[in-house]
Amino acid sequence: MYERFWQQAGDKSTIVIPGWQSMSYFSDAGSLCWFLEPDFAEEIIRLHKIVGNAVTEDRHIVVGTGSTQLYQAVLYALSPQDAVEPLSVVSAAPYYSSYPLITDCLKSGLYKWAGDARSFNKEGPFIELVTSPNNPDGYARQSVVNKSGGILVHDLAYYWPQYTPIISAANHDIMLFTVSKSTGHAGMRIGWALVKDEEVAKKMVKFVELNTIGVSKDSQLRAAKVLQVVISSCQYPTSLGSLFDFSAHLMEERWSLLRAAVRQSGLFTLPEFSPGSCSFLNRSFAPQPAFAWLKCQELMEDCEGFLRSNNILTRSGKHFGVSPQYVRISMLDRDENFYIFVERLSTIHLRHSIQVDERGE
Amino acid sequence: MYERFWQQAGDKSTIVIPGWQSMSYFSDAGSLCWFLEPDFAEEIIRLHKIVGNAVTEDRHIVVGTGSTQLYQAVLYALSPQDAVEPLSVVSAAPYYSSYPLITDCLKSGLYKWAGDARSFNKEGPFIELVTSPNNPDGYARQSVVNKSGGILVHDLAYYWPQYTPIISAANHDIMLFTVSKSTGHAGMRIGWALVKDEEVAKKMVKFVELNTIGVSKDSQLRAAKVLQVVISSCQYPTSLGSLFDFSAHLMEERWSLLRAAVRQSGLFTLPEFSPGSCSFLNRSFAPQPAFAWLKCQELMEDCEGFLRSNNILTRSGKHFGVSPQYVRISMLDRDENFYIFVERLSTIHLRHSIQVDERGE
Repeated sequence: MYERFWQQAGDKSTIVIPGWQSMSYFSDAGSLCWFLEPDFAEEIIRLHKIVGNAVTEDRHIVVGTGSTQLYQAVLYALSPQDAVEPLSVVSAAPYYSSYPLITDCLKSGLYKWAGDARSFNKEGPFIELVTSPNNPDGYARQSVVNKSGGILVHDLAYYWPQYTPIISAANHDIMLFTVSKSTGHAGMRIGWALVKDEEVAKKMVKFVELNTIGVSKDSQLRAAKVLQVVISSCQYPTSLGSLFDFSAHLMEERWSLLRAAVRQSGLFTLPEFSPGSCSFLNRSFAPQPAFAWLKCQELMEDCEGFLRSNNILTRSGKHFGVSPQYVRISMLDRDENFYIFVERLSTIHLRHSIQVDERGE
Repeated sequence: MYERFWQQAGDKSTIVIPGWQSMSYFSDAGSLCWFLEPDFAEEIIRLHKIVGNAVTEDRHIVVGTGSTQLYQAVLYALSPQDAVEPLSVVSAAPYYSSYPLITDCLKSGLYKWAGDARSFNKEGPFIELVTSPNNPDGYARQSVVNKSGGILVHDLAYYWPQYTPIISAANHDIMLFTVSKSTGHAGMRIGWALVKDEEVAKKMVKFVELNTIGVSKDSQLRAAKVLQVVISSCQYPTSLGSLFDFSAHLMEERWSLLRAAVRQSGLFTLPEFSPGSCSFLNRSFAPQPAFAWLKCQELMEDCEGFLRSNNILTRSGKHFGVSPQYVRISMLDRDENFYIFVERLSTIHLRHSIQVDERGE
């Protein structure tokens, strides 16, 4: 979806790295996050300042191989090494389907997936993941567990103006971001955490050290360049506008096509969002999330299977902790794929009705 | 140490990546390792063929964020998900100090560090890590556990002609390599595994997917370029020779300086190696490892502390599963640092003697 913007940006966003550069493990040996490229750190701060989506003052930046690695670094950092039983990790359903898989894949004695935050009632400390806007359903979120002892981790991968109005600068203790959702560069595998507590940041750095001895310098240098171009597109917009103008416009278009297809089909519903005033784009609009969270009619119990039989690949709600009546669909695919998807979705009703008629005869 | 070679290689080893390239998570969606860049895979095979250090036929290539991530991917792949107790992981001491730390950092229920392979006598299945040449002591190694049920993992990070004669092409089931030790590009965080069994390779891919959703494309593209230059330096050597000529020569020089310093000081010993015939360099030479494994005189119990007091930073043998009479020192630092190190080492005897004399007076 973002390719056209970057094609238009041309050489400005091209990175050139000679063979003899960035050979060492270290980026900034003296700093807390010794494998963080200083140029990249600088651009992160500039970007948050210009977008206004997160407070960077009084925060440590920890870079990760995508926010996925940082999520694990947070779990490691927050879990006491000497606890009798693993720390519970919860998130309100529907939650990001990878959270339970990543949390439990090594059967860690430090932490353990404990499911839906809304039904969590175990005594003692716990971690609550707050993904806002939420993956998969796009809603803005706050903590839901109503008891003490919880440590909040805010996954803000989608808190960018192309997906949701920027209401205020997020100001939480642990905030996770990634280039894949902000600029579209998923292949870089670069994420960053803004962390208030120095000890937590140090332990996260320790995890990344143990897990991968730092983070690709090449991708960090490229990410710095890409963020620089994003910032400059905000300051001096071209014919496409800033990256956020461009992509917000595209998301608006796509959501309007999707809602039209859903209306035409008549078999599904989508989340409804209230508009909010975006301090960055200077206008009011409703969230237009990176995923469509589609609910099938009561009659269809396996929405994923039903859509697959109509040549639409989705991910069942059961992976997100809810009913298989729901599915998640990416809204960030290439234009041609997105158009095929809405076309297919809009005609399901007709074909479905024909099948019913035929059976009825 | 490798910088001079890469400076001389100039533009040939420079990578240029436009902003709109390699944006997706996928490199080769249909292949077993869907995040492996096909160009990089090709250069890996060409390099092993020309160096003759590993069999690539009938092997799956899995790319990782350094061989550190691949080590964890192997543990995940080899551990049964439903076992009653964690799988034991062993290696003959002295072993790479990070193995126990990485293995146990999350207190996994799947696997557990079980120490020195030589004293391992637990019943049931286990994993034996065979690092050859060994980190820290540089010796060529084979499995030492003399019982069935073991799965061998060969860490061949240092099986390159600058460190040791290439006697034959390694032909094991699971072999790990990394660019940081072969070309010097530690900052790329790129390693690769050659894996015979398809199911093991698939599970390793699954781990990298869960851990970091793939591996930096930028670094893979750069690694492909760098390997291309290494291969071409073997085919058409410049004034520095091939990368391996250049670095083998440097290692030989450094080891001869180190041995002279150790002789002059009289307080230490180094491993002694027998020469072997290298099929790649077409000559016979003794191993010249990436680390010096220094043993201090019987009288000094804390060799690391003693050397620190002489302004030499080392890593104590206790981290490698042996006595603190040993220390590990990198032989791959920049020229200026290496010269300072041997200079300091060679004069310790004198200063030490003076101290003894002064105390004696």
